[in-house]
Amino acid sequence: MFSEAEQRLLDLPAFAKLATVMRDGSLQNTVMWFRSDGNTLRMIAPEASVKARNLDRNPAVAVAIDNPENGYHYIEIRGRAEIVHDDAAARAELRLIARRYIGDHADAYTNALSDAPRVLIVIHPERVRLNQGQPPRPS
Amino acid sequence: MFSEAEQRLLDLPAFAKLATVMRDGSLQNTVMWFRSDGNTLRMIAPEASVKARNLDRNPAVAVAIDNPENGYHYIEIRGRAEIVHDDAAARAELRLIARRYIGDHADAYTNALSDAPRVLIVIHPERVRLNQGQPPRPS
Repeated sequence: MFSEAEQRLLDLPAFAKLATVMRDGSLQNTVMWFRSDGNTLRMIAPEASVKARNLDRNPAVAVAIDNPENGYHYIEIRGRAEIVHDDAAARAELRLIARRYIGDHADAYTNALSDAPRVLIVIHPERVRLNQGQPPRPS
Repeated sequence: MFSEAEQRLLDLPAFAKLATVMRDGSLQNTVMWFRSDGNTLRMIAPEASVKARNLDRNPAVAVAIDNPENGYHYIEIRGRAEIVHDDAAARAELRLIARRYIGDHADAYTNALSDAPRVLIVIHPERVRLNQGQPPRPS
């Protein structure tokens, strides 16, 4: 479970940078909306997207999330992604996620999505490192 | 070479999220100061750091950089890192990098660093994707 200080950062409408491994061993690092339920991070992607296919093949992820108001306030999370191939569950989760970023427009946004199936990405943290907001000191 | 629009974003004092591969195949995604010289991204790390050792073993990187003023204005860069084991070159580069973030304090910051050797990380982009600042549209 995330600590109180970690959860405060995760509850901001900040953007997650999600790193995944490509088929050829190179990396992808993409900017994502997300939501935390206290134990995991939850994101949505088209089932046909590169990141969803990467995660079906290799569940390793690392996520960096920084406070838009203070770039030295950030969290680095390493862990594994569980991919839930359930379009209805993914769309229901997206309504909750989108509300964090676009408020009352979230339902209209979700309703206007194409029929292309979505997956729910559930990230289970294994290592978490929080930086509390101070710039680096010489060391 | 980065396009003009890409370089404008890279010239902001934004933070790079640098993904690397750990020895066991898991991932790390860390928040970094950086500078772009027009063709590459340049960062500094202690030679003994996990990320430097990761990159000595496996040069695959993916970097995400977003505009602190607009999280939908971001760049995703996939490529390979060249690790330059030259402490003097790394410290000289750090003066330039630090100036972007802490201005006139950059020299004092760099002078106060410990003697632990630093490496210069030079990232050669292979795939670049710029998002110009608009929120996602339903698709």
